[in-house]
Amino acid sequence: MTEGRREKTEDSKQNGAMAFSFAVHAKAGSARTGVFQTPHGPVETPAFMPVGTLATVKVLDPDELAAMHAQMILANAYHLHLRPGDEAIRTLGGLHKFMGWHGPILTDSGGFQVFSLASLNAVTEDGVTFRSHIDGSERHFTPESVMQIEVNLGADVIMQFDHVIPGQSDRAAASDASERSIRWLDRCSAAFSRLTEGGPARQALFPIVQGGIHADLRRDAAARIAAAGAWHGIAIGGLSVGEGKPAMYEMLDVCHAALPHDRPRYLMGVGYPEDLIEGVARGVDLFDCVAPTRMGRNGAALTSTGRINLKNAAHRLDERPIEEDCGCRTCRRFSRAYLRHLTHADEMLGPRLLSLHNVHFLIAMMRRARAAIADGSFEGWSRDWLARFHSTTELS
Amino acid sequence: MTEGRREKTEDSKQNGAMAFSFAVHAKAGSARTGVFQTPHGPVETPAFMPVGTLATVKVLDPDELAAMHAQMILANAYHLHLRPGDEAIRTLGGLHKFMGWHGPILTDSGGFQVFSLASLNAVTEDGVTFRSHIDGSERHFTPESVMQIEVNLGADVIMQFDHVIPGQSDRAAASDASERSIRWLDRCSAAFSRLTEGGPARQALFPIVQGGIHADLRRDAAARIAAAGAWHGIAIGGLSVGEGKPAMYEMLDVCHAALPHDRPRYLMGVGYPEDLIEGVARGVDLFDCVAPTRMGRNGAALTSTGRINLKNAAHRLDERPIEEDCGCRTCRRFSRAYLRHLTHADEMLGPRLLSLHNVHFLIAMMRRARAAIADGSFEGWSRDWLARFHSTTELS
Repeated sequence: MTEGRREKTEDSKQNGAMAFSFAVHAKAGSARTGVFQTPHGPVETPAFMPVGTLATVKVLDPDELAAMHAQMILANAYHLHLRPGDEAIRTLGGLHKFMGWHGPILTDSGGFQVFSLASLNAVTEDGVTFRSHIDGSERHFTPESVMQIEVNLGADVIMQFDHVIPGQSDRAAASDASERSIRWLDRCSAAFSRLTEGGPARQALFPIVQGGIHADLRRDAAARIAAAGAWHGIAIGGLSVGEGKPAMYEMLDVCHAALPHDRPRYLMGVGYPEDLIEGVARGVDLFDCVAPTRMGRNGAALTSTGRINLKNAAHRLDERPIEEDCGCRTCRRFSRAYLRHLTHADEMLGPRLLSLHNVHFLIAMMRRARAAIADGSFEGWSRDWLARFHSTTELS
Repeated sequence: MTEGRREKTEDSKQNGAMAFSFAVHAKAGSARTGVFQTPHGPVETPAFMPVGTLATVKVLDPDELAAMHAQMILANAYHLHLRPGDEAIRTLGGLHKFMGWHGPILTDSGGFQVFSLASLNAVTEDGVTFRSHIDGSERHFTPESVMQIEVNLGADVIMQFDHVIPGQSDRAAASDASERSIRWLDRCSAAFSRLTEGGPARQALFPIVQGGIHADLRRDAAARIAAAGAWHGIAIGGLSVGEGKPAMYEMLDVCHAALPHDRPRYLMGVGYPEDLIEGVARGVDLFDCVAPTRMGRNGAALTSTGRINLKNAAHRLDERPIEEDCGCRTCRRFSRAYLRHLTHADEMLGPRLLSLHNVHFLIAMMRRARAAIADGSFEGWSRDWLARFHSTTELS
């Protein structure tokens, strides 16, 4: 264990307070582009972070992710605690070494999973008691135990343990969960300090702004959280969980106004192409979503004119790639006809090649957004982009 | 269609009679090493050919196959006729272009599948009537229709349509099927000539020696088939289908004596590591088997000391690669612990990384066998190899 940990620390270019930083290089309205520095390297923002829940971005190889210029990826504390166990990953030298990804990693705390995947969860002020979705075994998560898990995993950015509620929860429920999340943030922060005391600053704890779709709750939570610590970044949680898109965009506007502008903002679990554009326009810097790999497993592919489904017979004899000018390794080599055959025949190479294209699509889209912010063309570019993206979408 | 076909013809370095050739460079007992030349490049023999039944070596990318020096791969006429259709593949420019593999390809005729996968098959002298294993639709294969399918697919080597019977069939059944296969070879040969008349020699038809586990039938079939045409290679079929290994090895000895020594011999469907060594020792030049990718999907990995199963808890904290001195991209980057986690969690990256290792293992093993034949050390090397391989095998 200690050997792997030592290696990682020595790998890091920066220690102490210098390990994390954020600099905005250009703005266009509320949109901004900059660089978020982590112990495992820089992240140019705004950025889409592929999701590797179980320490693997489903079916993709870390070298493929690096080749498509993925910058930072996600993993999940809840899932990795259950399998293979955070202690095992710590013993094996931490998450970077375990999964062979040497760039920045962020771990979600499992707040969302405890409330969505697990069964029979019971919330008290202490924490959440739930049954594992794997074997039904009873488990108890507290802010302190989740910090221990995330320190064991060793990601660059770790998320606080929060109380996540359905998107359309009423004001009382949203307020209750938001207040609890803020109290749990204090406990996470204290536990994280104890666990990492004296060591180099290899990890940064991000708080999560909750508050449902209630502007005043969001505003209040954002202001109080921002004032509560010298965070290296702040997340916006509990969106894209059943509320409508207008409500989500309104909450982003509220958070943008209330959050400090010199720290990265991470909009959790949001990653449909149009949501990325709308989020960037509202000052969001980091995004993650399982959509591109999940769509890939379902035979769907993203194109600049909308989503297509490769299972459709229309693609049977189509010699074109998914997208003519896409630079991904799927489009450079394979026809829609071949991808249609693979998905139709349930061949695993199908999900693999489609996932690769879809993740590449979002990464390339964000690269283009950064360039548009930097050269002042973001407003026109994003308007045109959204119009084109909504021009055709195949029913799947 | 015509454009893809033209491209391929122009790509080929050799046309006409020069497109196929075989030269033996060194011998060690019955084992030999040489080069089998095809329109899509050379194949150093003995060689293991990965199986891409449905125009995809399951979950692997053609670039990964090229990087591990796979030389020639298989696809299957029965499967591709049903999905996506051989006419579709012809329209799309042929199998090489369709699947993005630009090296040599061999298609099996579907004889084996018609008798194993399909249901309600009825054999007459004309051919076989069966129901598709996909949708139950009734189909009829004849030697002539199968030649049309394989010409449509456009592989470098195409197999005759044969009558395949269970490994332990009695003498009468084996004789009946062998005689029918020989009669069908005549019809395949005539149909293939008609279909390719006047065109460049882009494809070679291989006959298949049948005869079950009956030495006299095998000897007779081998001699008659060898005398029946100027084949560029001859296959040995109907082995590794339920008979014991001693019977298989005896049949290989019989065929070795009866077949011409200046043509490559292809032992169909055989590919466990020990069988490759035993086959090479009996003069076989080409092998194929789904075992390495199927084992990969089941969590098993080949090592020089036997097979291991990554699902076993013993590998939970094992930081070693599958095999210390393996040069494959799985072993160079990932621990047994990570592979155990992936297989245990049913993550698709697990089968992918294990399949890559297993196919690489057999390809590298055959490269080593060629070197041992060339430098005169094959007998000792193969004896040591078999002893080491049988030293430990994990129960899976």
